[in-house]
Amino acid sequence: MRVIIDVMSGDNAPLELIRGAVNAAEELSVDITIVGDQEVIREIAEKEEISLEKLTIVHADSVILMEDKPLCVVREKKDSSMSVGLRMLAEGEGDAFVSAGNTGALLAGSTLVVRRIKGVQRAAIATVLPFPTPILLMDSGANLVVTPENMEQFAYMGSIYMSKIYGLEAPRVGQLNNGTEYNKGLPLQVDTYERLTGREDLNFIGNVESREIPFGACDVLITDGFTGNITLKLTEGMAKFMSSTLKSLFTSNIVTKVSGLAMMNKIKELKKQFDASEHGGAPLLGIAKPVIKAHGSSDAKAIKSAVQQAISFVNTGINQEIAKFSLEFEAKVKAEKTAAQEVQPQEN
Amino acid sequence: MRVIIDVMSGDNAPLELIRGAVNAAEELSVDITIVGDQEVIREIAEKEEISLEKLTIVHADSVILMEDKPLCVVREKKDSSMSVGLRMLAEGEGDAFVSAGNTGALLAGSTLVVRRIKGVQRAAIATVLPFPTPILLMDSGANLVVTPENMEQFAYMGSIYMSKIYGLEAPRVGQLNNGTEYNKGLPLQVDTYERLTGREDLNFIGNVESREIPFGACDVLITDGFTGNITLKLTEGMAKFMSSTLKSLFTSNIVTKVSGLAMMNKIKELKKQFDASEHGGAPLLGIAKPVIKAHGSSDAKAIKSAVQQAISFVNTGINQEIAKFSLEFEAKVKAEKTAAQEVQPQEN
Repeated sequence: MRVIIDVMSGDNAPLELIRGAVNAAEELSVDITIVGDQEVIREIAEKEEISLEKLTIVHADSVILMEDKPLCVVREKKDSSMSVGLRMLAEGEGDAFVSAGNTGALLAGSTLVVRRIKGVQRAAIATVLPFPTPILLMDSGANLVVTPENMEQFAYMGSIYMSKIYGLEAPRVGQLNNGTEYNKGLPLQVDTYERLTGREDLNFIGNVESREIPFGACDVLITDGFTGNITLKLTEGMAKFMSSTLKSLFTSNIVTKVSGLAMMNKIKELKKQFDASEHGGAPLLGIAKPVIKAHGSSDAKAIKSAVQQAISFVNTGINQEIAKFSLEFEAKVKAEKTAAQEVQPQEN
Repeated sequence: MRVIIDVMSGDNAPLELIRGAVNAAEELSVDITIVGDQEVIREIAEKEEISLEKLTIVHADSVILMEDKPLCVVREKKDSSMSVGLRMLAEGEGDAFVSAGNTGALLAGSTLVVRRIKGVQRAAIATVLPFPTPILLMDSGANLVVTPENMEQFAYMGSIYMSKIYGLEAPRVGQLNNGTEYNKGLPLQVDTYERLTGREDLNFIGNVESREIPFGACDVLITDGFTGNITLKLTEGMAKFMSSTLKSLFTSNIVTKVSGLAMMNKIKELKKQFDASEHGGAPLLGIAKPVIKAHGSSDAKAIKSAVQQAISFVNTGINQEIAKFSLEFEAKVKAEKTAAQEVQPQEN
C-alpha cells in the first residue's frame, strides 16, 4: 500500500510533515510518497539530519495557501503539492492521500480530480468529536445547504465508517436538532427524521440535542455543514477555554499553586483528549479514494496518525461498502421519483 | 413597581418559586404578585412556615406543562398560571412577568397576549452566555427561520439591552458564522453582513466563529434560532462535561484526591460561572412589556435574580429605546421597498 502526503501544507509544513512521513514509513508497513518542493525538502532534511531514504519524493512547484479560493486547486495552482498529490491518487499512483492544507481546496480538488463514488450526491467532511464516546460529525463543513437525501447518505456513510474503523456493530445515528421530538426543527430535520425512521439497515436513534453530545448520545451525528461547522468549532473553543481557565485558577495563589502543580498531569490528560494529533484527521467520505484532511496544526505525530487512519480506511474496505450502498440508494431514489410521477395527475 | 411571578411552572415549583418571590419582596424594593393554585400555595407556605404577607396572590386553576403545545396558553389552558400572569401584564396589573415554564408557550403567549412592540417583526429569546466577557445570544431558539431584516432587529435590540443592563457604551455586535470573511455562510449571513456594515448607530464587528465565543469575541451574537439553540445547549453541555470530567480526574487516586480536595473550591467557582441561578433569566426582547424566562431548574435565588433583572429592565427604559428604534426601522424598510418597486420595470 502506498500513501501520498502533501508535505507543503499546514501550519508546521514542511518540517513536521516530513518527520511524520519518515516516521510512518519506518514504523508502519506502508510505502510513502511525499509531494512538495524538492529543493526545500532536501535542504530541510539535510539541515535537520533527516534521512529521506525510505520516501519517494515527487516535485510540486507551488503551495495552496489557507486564503486561496477552493477552485485554485484545479485552476491557478494546478502545480501545487495538493493538486499533484490528488492527480497521483486519481491515476492510481497511491492508495490514499493525506493533506493538512486548505479544507475547501482539498474538498473541491477531491471532488473534481478524484471524483465521488458513483451514486454519492455530496462528499462530507467526517470529523470525530473526541469525547469518551467519540462521535462522528457528518457533515462538519463541506455542504452548507443539504437535502434529506444528502442527510440519508451522510447517515449511511458515517455508519459504515464507524463500524469499520471503531468496530461498532450497529453505530447509533442521531440527527442534531433543537429538541428530541420527531417534529422538531426545520423541514430538513423533519423530513430526514421521517426518511430514516424504521430502516432495518440503519440504527437511527432519532434527534439529539447538542447538550448531550459530550455524553455519548450517539456514534454518528448528522447535520448540515453550517450547523456542523459551528458545532465542531464550539467544542474546540470550549475545550480550550476550560483548560486555560483551569490553568489560571490553579496558579492564582500559592495554596492552589502547590496543589495545582500536582494536578497538571491530570489536566494534560484532559487536554490531550481534545488534541488533534491523537485522533488523526477527518476523512472526506464519499470520495472514490481515501482522502484524509489532517488538522492544520498537525505535527509529526498527527501526520503519522493520519497515515495510520488512511491504512485502516483502505484495509477495511470502507469505500467498497459505500459504493454498494450508494448504488442501491440511487436505484431506490429513482424508483421513488418514478412512483411519485405516476401518482401525479396527468395534465392535458 | 410590580413584578408578576408564575410560581407553578419549573422543575422546583411551587416551593422554590414561592421562596424566591418572598425573598424578592423582602429584599428588593418591589411589589410582587404570585400566580398559581391558591390552595396549594397556602398549604405549602404553612407547612414550610413561609410568610406570604408581603405577596399578592392571584389564583389560577391549571399549569402549563413542558410537554404542552405552545398555543395551549391561549386555548386549552387559558386558566393556567402562565396565561393569567400574561393577561395581568397586558392589562397593566404589573410591570414585568417572570416564569420558569415552557419556553414555547411563554413566547406564544407573550406574542399573542402582551403583543410585540410596534415595528418589531419577531421577538427573540436573548440568553446571556456566561463567559468572562458575557455574550448575549440573539436568538437562542424562538425563531428557527429568520430574514436579514429580523437579524438587523436582533442586532439593535441586543445592543440596547447590553448597553442598558451591562453599561456598555457601544456593544460589539457579531454574526455567528462558519468563517470570518464577509462572504462566508448562507445567503442569510451574507445579506445580513451587508445590511449591518457601515452603520453609524451600531457597532457591527463582522462575523464571529463559534470557537471564539468563550474568549470575548463580541457582546451581542446574532444568529437564527436554530443555530442559536444548538450553540446555547452545546455551551451548557460542554460546561457540564468539563466539570464532571474534572471531578472524576481529581478523585481517581489518592494523590490526586488530596490535591483535588484543595481544588474543589476553585472548581466550584468555575461551575458557578455557568450556573443559571447567577445570571437571572432570558428576556424575550421585542415584547411590549418585560417578560423574563427563568431557567427551568431555577431555585429561589435564581427567581430573585430574575426579579432583579426585571426591575433593571423596567428602570433602564429598554423597551422605550426598542420602540423608538423600531419605528425608525419600519419607516426605513418601507422606504426601501418603495424604492425597490420604483426601480423595477413596469409590466404591461
